Amino acid sequence: MKPDPIRPTDDAARALARALLDAMRHASLGSIEPETGLPLVTRIAVQADRDGAPLALLSGLAAHSRALAADPRAGLLIAAEPGKGDAMTHARLSLMGRAAPAGDDPERRARWLARDPRAQVYFDLPDFRFWRIEPVAGLLNAGFGQAYRLGAADMLKPPAE
Amino acid sequence: MKPDPIRPTDDAARALARALLDAMRHASLGSIEPETGLPLVTRIAVQADRDGAPLALLSGLAAHSRALAADPRAGLLIAAEPGKGDAMTHARLSLMGRAAPAGDDPERRARWLARDPRAQVYFDLPDFRFWRIEPVAGLLNAGFGQAYRLGAADMLKPPAE
Repeated sequence: MKPDPIRPTDDAARALARALLDAMRHASLGSIEPETGLPLVTRIAVQADRDGAPLALLSGLAAHSRALAADPRAGLLIAAEPGKGDAMTHARLSLMGRAAPAGDDPERRARWLARDPRAQVYFDLPDFRFWRIEPVAGLLNAGFGQAYRLGAADMLKPPAE
Repeated sequence: MKPDPIRPTDDAARALARALLDAMRHASLGSIEPETGLPLVTRIAVQADRDGAPLALLSGLAAHSRALAADPRAGLLIAAEPGKGDAMTHARLSLMGRAAPAGDDPERRARWLARDPRAQVYFDLPDFRFWRIEPVAGLLNAGFGQAYRLGAADMLKPPAE
């Protein structure tokens, strides 16, 4: 019998997942290419929305936007910014969810620009818009074979007390 | 009408795609999670096989191995190793294809270890094996909005003269 590499989810795992989401500026997006049904993996600009869910800034001209418009199933690989050492030992979160266009309100734009001032060039283009990815499940790799399965509540910010 | 951001594929685009594949040591893998049907994006160790196709070294305990065993559809995001500057402007290749277990012959192992000597620890474990991803289609982003659609022959090494 194979050993089960999944550990019980604890507060340290939840805190690590939320920290990865909070620090996220880019991620690898998985969508389903409509023509072939094959997974399309692309690099996107993405930050945490107010509640911690991923908020992506996508061009309507990009293949991933057409894919998500046809099929909302989405995956994200969220890793800490590249550091030194073996890339296979860095903490990372595979988040799975469903994508939908999100409103472009001034508060969202201001939050985004505070973290990524260079994004003004994208806001000035007509084809960029926000998409939210509603988390369904996650797989956290905390490095060195420490793996955890997470639900949406383990990744989103806890409700204010 | 939206402008078509795809440029005609030329030899420079083919050479860039092959160079990204040749330099590849890690990539983001997209697979389809069997339980939910959602795209699962994970970081894997992957190098070019003899003909240039991606050859991955995967643990049988990992969620992506179970996903690929249930459904061979696979995607890879292959990027140059992280450098300076805006990650959205670096060249990268989204390769789509089908995964299948591949033979563990001594020549493959030796080629792999020559490029990644630390992988000996994985070869010493019983649950790691090679998977090949047969390319079907690709989307090359050469940076600064230069996008190309590629077929398998544009990404594999050209046949010897």
